[in-house]
Amino acid sequence: MIDVAIGVDVGGTKALALLVARDGRVLAEAQAPTPHLNSDDVGAPTAAVVTELVKTLSAHQGLDPSSVPICIGLPGMMRRDGRLVYAPNLRSASGADLGALLSVALASSMVFFENDANCAALCEHEWGAGRGIDDFVMVTLGTGIGGGIIADGELIRGHSGFAGEIGHMVVVARGAACLCGGHGCWERYASGGGLNRLTREAAIDGRLPTLVAQRGNAASVRAEDVTAAAAQNLDEAVVLMREIGWWLALGLANLAAILDCGHFVIGGGLSTASDLVLPCAREYLVDLVEGYSARPAITVTPSMFGPRSGAMGAALVAFERTR
Amino acid sequence: MIDVAIGVDVGGTKALALLVARDGRVLAEAQAPTPHLNSDDVGAPTAAVVTELVKTLSAHQGLDPSSVPICIGLPGMMRRDGRLVYAPNLRSASGADLGALLSVALASSMVFFENDANCAALCEHEWGAGRGIDDFVMVTLGTGIGGGIIADGELIRGHSGFAGEIGHMVVVARGAACLCGGHGCWERYASGGGLNRLTREAAIDGRLPTLVAQRGNAASVRAEDVTAAAAQNLDEAVVLMREIGWWLALGLANLAAILDCGHFVIGGGLSTASDLVLPCAREYLVDLVEGYSARPAITVTPSMFGPRSGAMGAALVAFERTR
Repeated sequence: MIDVAIGVDVGGTKALALLVARDGRVLAEAQAPTPHLNSDDVGAPTAAVVTELVKTLSAHQGLDPSSVPICIGLPGMMRRDGRLVYAPNLRSASGADLGALLSVALASSMVFFENDANCAALCEHEWGAGRGIDDFVMVTLGTGIGGGIIADGELIRGHSGFAGEIGHMVVVARGAACLCGGHGCWERYASGGGLNRLTREAAIDGRLPTLVAQRGNAASVRAEDVTAAAAQNLDEAVVLMREIGWWLALGLANLAAILDCGHFVIGGGLSTASDLVLPCAREYLVDLVEGYSARPAITVTPSMFGPRSGAMGAALVAFERTR
Repeated sequence: MIDVAIGVDVGGTKALALLVARDGRVLAEAQAPTPHLNSDDVGAPTAAVVTELVKTLSAHQGLDPSSVPICIGLPGMMRRDGRLVYAPNLRSASGADLGALLSVALASSMVFFENDANCAALCEHEWGAGRGIDDFVMVTLGTGIGGGIIADGELIRGHSGFAGEIGHMVVVARGAACLCGGHGCWERYASGGGLNRLTREAAIDGRLPTLVAQRGNAASVRAEDVTAAAAQNLDEAVVLMREIGWWLALGLANLAAILDCGHFVIGGGLSTASDLVLPCAREYLVDLVEGYSARPAITVTPSMFGPRSGAMGAALVAFERTR
């Protein structure tokens, strides 16, 4: 019985590694910026950062990295064997065989892989806001939108392990261009990236006059300005955050219709603005979910472990696969 | 061991009842038009028709209806206890407690209920186009669009048994009004009802000049005229059927992203036009599915049992619940 594991969550901006005990306690932590440079050897910079983090954590605890089960969570279409087949929000590693790179670099046969939002869903299901709930969807609002679906108590992995790519559900046919090559994907409207886009449009359209005046010009207004000003109750910013809340609710309503999940757990960077966005989303769900009043109440709560849920869930996968 | 069951599929236009053996053989059949009159006693006309069909089938085989397990499949949000809590495409029974009505009328304790598309999915999984396939979605293109999701070999029922309401996934935010009260639902674009709507719009817009000339005026052109003319290769009709194929592919692409189902089985009335629509849908999927080329091939096939899959699957549920 192995009683510690290392979970690594490689996000759009940083990579977080945690040494986690079987009961969920975090024993040690290390982090580093996610490399975005393009290498001839695709995925090599990402593998190097992960290797460094794992070695740092192991050394700190006097562990041999090859004796600790390790799982790495990554955004996008992550195959179980370690090939990140497609990751529109992590271009520098999209297509890489991280399984091959990391098992060599760490001299370990206990290196596993999973989609990052799936990891977060497993973490929240085991220890957090989805504990004891059989049907919920973990929604991570970061650069894009990731998803992890728990149905009847089990993670839905799908045919190749790619299930939960909810950010690429089209909600506006022929809508805004997405990094995935498609148009009108949900993540163009409701993620951190979506807020960036809406902010830019609103600033140019003259719907953010106070913020444009503060920054000097429309092009300089940032999403962070909007969330900060909305927290101070500036009307024009609140209106924009409500718009994000509406788009969030639209996608959640789709998932509720498809999956009949009675619960959503919201994580990721944008969820730090959850005091502003989640109440709006809950309010709009009433109109957007088919037959809302005929269903049991649908609940929407922030993730319990916030930015740690991905790495903690990755550790859980490492335990699961070495059981 | 009970070796026959009765499955009833109550659709938008007709109700079909089948007496089915455990191995899937259909032993007898009866059908009647679905009543759409509004009764003070909501659901009573539907229950009366179902009762009549079950009694006819039983009598024909010399069976006592109370000794045969019976399951009724209905469109919409069907609770396991027999309450059809919400059915936008079957208004005359929406909200009815069919469980209470039918257990009294049939003097039976073996009357069960399930969503109609879930029944079709179970039928195709057991005996048809989804046999041996662990991850697929059954899509029924009728008045609306119904869905039954098989993930990891099991039907996804969700929190209250309402999963699979895929027709009410919004694909055009703030789009065409839907009978459910929402806007832009997939079934407004890709179902039989969607074809009606597109036909009307195209006739008025002057995009169906030949058919309008044949019928005398735009308002008289029907969806059936379009499918018939498209089968004869009339260009203007083919263009419209390709449009339906595009909308179908759009929703399938969303489901593939969310569920990573490698296979779709298409049933329902509009699927009789499947020679026209399915090849287009397959073609458009290549562009519409996130990371299409990085996935195993996604297959789209017509249902094997066509209009019978719902009633056959209902019989399967009856077997399952009396096992």
